[in-house]
Amino acid sequence: MTEVSTVLAHARANLPQSELRWFDLLRIPSISAQPKHANDCSKAAHWLSGQLEEIGFDAKVHLTAGHPVVLAHHPGPGGDAPHILYYGHYDVQPADPLDLWTSDPFEPAVVDGPHGRRVVARGAVDDKGQTMTWLEALRAWHERAGGPPARVTVLIEGEEEVGSKNLDTFLEENADALRADIVVISDTNMWDIDTPAISTRLRGLLYTQIDITAANRDLHSGMYGGSALNPINLLTRILGDLKAEDGTIRIPGFYDNVQELPQELRRQWATLGFDEKKFLGDIGLSVPSGESGRSALERLWARPTADINGIWGGYTGEGSKTVIAAEAHAKLSFRLVPGQVPSDIIKGLYDFLMDRMPEDARAKIQVFSHGQAIEVPADGPWVRAAQEALSEEFGRPAVLIGCGGSIPVVESFRRVLGMDSLLVGFGLDDDQVHSPNEKFKLRCFERGVGSHVRLLAKLAAVKGA
Amino acid sequence: MTEVSTVLAHARANLPQSELRWFDLLRIPSISAQPKHANDCSKAAHWLSGQLEEIGFDAKVHLTAGHPVVLAHHPGPGGDAPHILYYGHYDVQPADPLDLWTSDPFEPAVVDGPHGRRVVARGAVDDKGQTMTWLEALRAWHERAGGPPARVTVLIEGEEEVGSKNLDTFLEENADALRADIVVISDTNMWDIDTPAISTRLRGLLYTQIDITAANRDLHSGMYGGSALNPINLLTRILGDLKAEDGTIRIPGFYDNVQELPQELRRQWATLGFDEKKFLGDIGLSVPSGESGRSALERLWARPTADINGIWGGYTGEGSKTVIAAEAHAKLSFRLVPGQVPSDIIKGLYDFLMDRMPEDARAKIQVFSHGQAIEVPADGPWVRAAQEALSEEFGRPAVLIGCGGSIPVVESFRRVLGMDSLLVGFGLDDDQVHSPNEKFKLRCFERGVGSHVRLLAKLAAVKGA
Repeated sequence: MTEVSTVLAHARANLPQSELRWFDLLRIPSISAQPKHANDCSKAAHWLSGQLEEIGFDAKVHLTAGHPVVLAHHPGPGGDAPHILYYGHYDVQPADPLDLWTSDPFEPAVVDGPHGRRVVARGAVDDKGQTMTWLEALRAWHERAGGPPARVTVLIEGEEEVGSKNLDTFLEENADALRADIVVISDTNMWDIDTPAISTRLRGLLYTQIDITAANRDLHSGMYGGSALNPINLLTRILGDLKAEDGTIRIPGFYDNVQELPQELRRQWATLGFDEKKFLGDIGLSVPSGESGRSALERLWARPTADINGIWGGYTGEGSKTVIAAEAHAKLSFRLVPGQVPSDIIKGLYDFLMDRMPEDARAKIQVFSHGQAIEVPADGPWVRAAQEALSEEFGRPAVLIGCGGSIPVVESFRRVLGMDSLLVGFGLDDDQVHSPNEKFKLRCFERGVGSHVRLLAKLAAVKGA
Repeated sequence: MTEVSTVLAHARANLPQSELRWFDLLRIPSISAQPKHANDCSKAAHWLSGQLEEIGFDAKVHLTAGHPVVLAHHPGPGGDAPHILYYGHYDVQPADPLDLWTSDPFEPAVVDGPHGRRVVARGAVDDKGQTMTWLEALRAWHERAGGPPARVTVLIEGEEEVGSKNLDTFLEENADALRADIVVISDTNMWDIDTPAISTRLRGLLYTQIDITAANRDLHSGMYGGSALNPINLLTRILGDLKAEDGTIRIPGFYDNVQELPQELRRQWATLGFDEKKFLGDIGLSVPSGESGRSALERLWARPTADINGIWGGYTGEGSKTVIAAEAHAKLSFRLVPGQVPSDIIKGLYDFLMDRMPEDARAKIQVFSHGQAIEVPADGPWVRAAQEALSEEFGRPAVLIGCGGSIPVVESFRRVLGMDSLLVGFGLDDDQVHSPNEKFKLRCFERGVGSHVRLLAKLAAVKGA
């Protein structure tokens, strides 16, 4: 028996204990958004720190301006073994509305169903369950092999669900301790219950607010209509001009540096058999929107977007009010793809606005967030290691997928520490993340533990990292 | 001395008493919007009914589903004298914000200023002051000539400031008593303090709400952006397309029956010397909006408009939320001019929307109000009578003006009773109507009384009415 199969066998034999530990963590209502649960967040951090100490880590709970961060180190076998940083978060979303839960959200319930039993609890998957998959893998390596086969640092934060607002500072202040060869994160999904996936592309996000003002006060539309500039009409005129007939975005330079999807990924995505009809049907739609001439997954994962997320101005109550408002507002955000630089897009947006502003109107652009797209090289050693580990565990090839949304911590690791992330997750699309009756399939949890046992061996074997 | 000069001299000599009666009415806080002032509304109605009885009218306070209506009749001299209906309203707007008033809004203050003294109080001009101009004229006719020279009906309502919602029913139920040859209303302004005006054109109003829905729920813009139809983007696209470069409105058939302004009015308006630069400068604008190639007054009084009065959808709070909303809404209203029929415009709007709706979106149009434009024939006997009366009182010709807004009661008289209205008002643009420190110049009040004494004689002399 090789070392990895011994550790794997140990991990499998001890799954019942792993699940009990996972349940212990689920019982701590560490809701980061609610001040009354601040002590629970602290409790979860200390519980995790205790776990890490049990398995040979030098672990510490660090206070921040918000909820604490768990930071732990294991030297591994020494020598030139790679340094792996594991990231997770112990905080969870609020459980409201409580009356839609079939059981106590903070008392894990094991329920039978298709593909075997599932665990229902807030945080079952996001991200306590996923964090426990690699923590239990690290435990197996400790209990059976005396420690991980690589140098390992663990970072578990408690503010992911509220925007990780103290994480950048923490990364900056602990840069030396954290700078590793690769970050491993389990906070994403598989393709389906039988098909493991690695998310190698995340779209970036530029989120803005546009404020347009005209007259110095609200006006009566009878007295001034036909003479006074209406900023709501103007706003619709400008934003209505944002896209061409074919769905492309008209902002100057918007596509200048957009990289086309690599042929290999295009080929692989085509084999995934993504059912866009069902995807849209589930939300009551039948015809895809967005750029024409692109595949569904390409539009979702590899093409940029411009969506108005909110709009408001003038009278919005019941019935009628004959007002010409003094101002109009919109929240406008862009999903970005590799090559697009947020500051360039902001400049293009500014030019787009200014080209369309009449003399008496003023426009302001506020930027609420700006993160570039993330692309982990599909042919690099880390992704290859993960493909091998997952394929061995699941008995079928792991697929490389994209993600339409952004994962801000991935952008932080890139920006603050210059590190790539390996996104290997075991959730399923129907896990009800952030909703009542959040669940994680036991089969997914168990394969997650097995995958992480294998992955660590593969990562440890990467040369010249 | 002719009869009219005798009555006029009497009215002038008794102005101090007229003003005291006007002040008595101003002291009643008959705010129709506030239930706690319901008794004050009733008090104002009874006070007016008492005044009318004093001057020979058969007056009665009629209860309605809202505030009461004063209805009074005087047979006049009999024979074939015309039947004149005077309309006014005793209710006033709330006085808030109280701290911006320089004196008690319900204790009239006489204050010196340019062009002599002014009376400051809520309702000073709108419409208690204006109503008292013709009521005091009727009193002078009663006291000096034994009664008016025509058959007179008086209708004074108490819900004008809250939309006159029970007036149509009252007009229908009292059609026989109310159907007269002409309605006289003093609720509009002069051109300036030296130039009397008759408003012969009022734009109509079509007020709608457009509701657009797409997906069956709000979506995450990362997960669905690029594939899911965004109803806010769609709404801006549709509404942004509402006007052509030259400001004309693109709704099919919108201009089909629009009547060009009669040459005589165009000529007269050109002589008014309207200062659009100042008009716009006062509200912080410098360049007129609306249709190009039209004069300022034409755009304000004689051309139709399309203004978005309100818009909303998606996330409108602080910061960002990456949502693709399930619905988007706008309040869209049109000022209409003679020839335009609201039902035709609604149909055109529907076609305009449907032409631009993609397969998965649904649109609904709600109609909140629809009134045609009003045009009183400028060369008819009633306008001519008013021109003569005003020109004699002011010593300069009365001008015929338009009004960009609609006056719903004028539309009601037309629609329910088939009657034209003669709009002869004595307010000024800076009277602060609906605002703190509402005022009415004593000079305006006094000339209003004199004008109405003369006008009644002129109207009584119209033959074959």
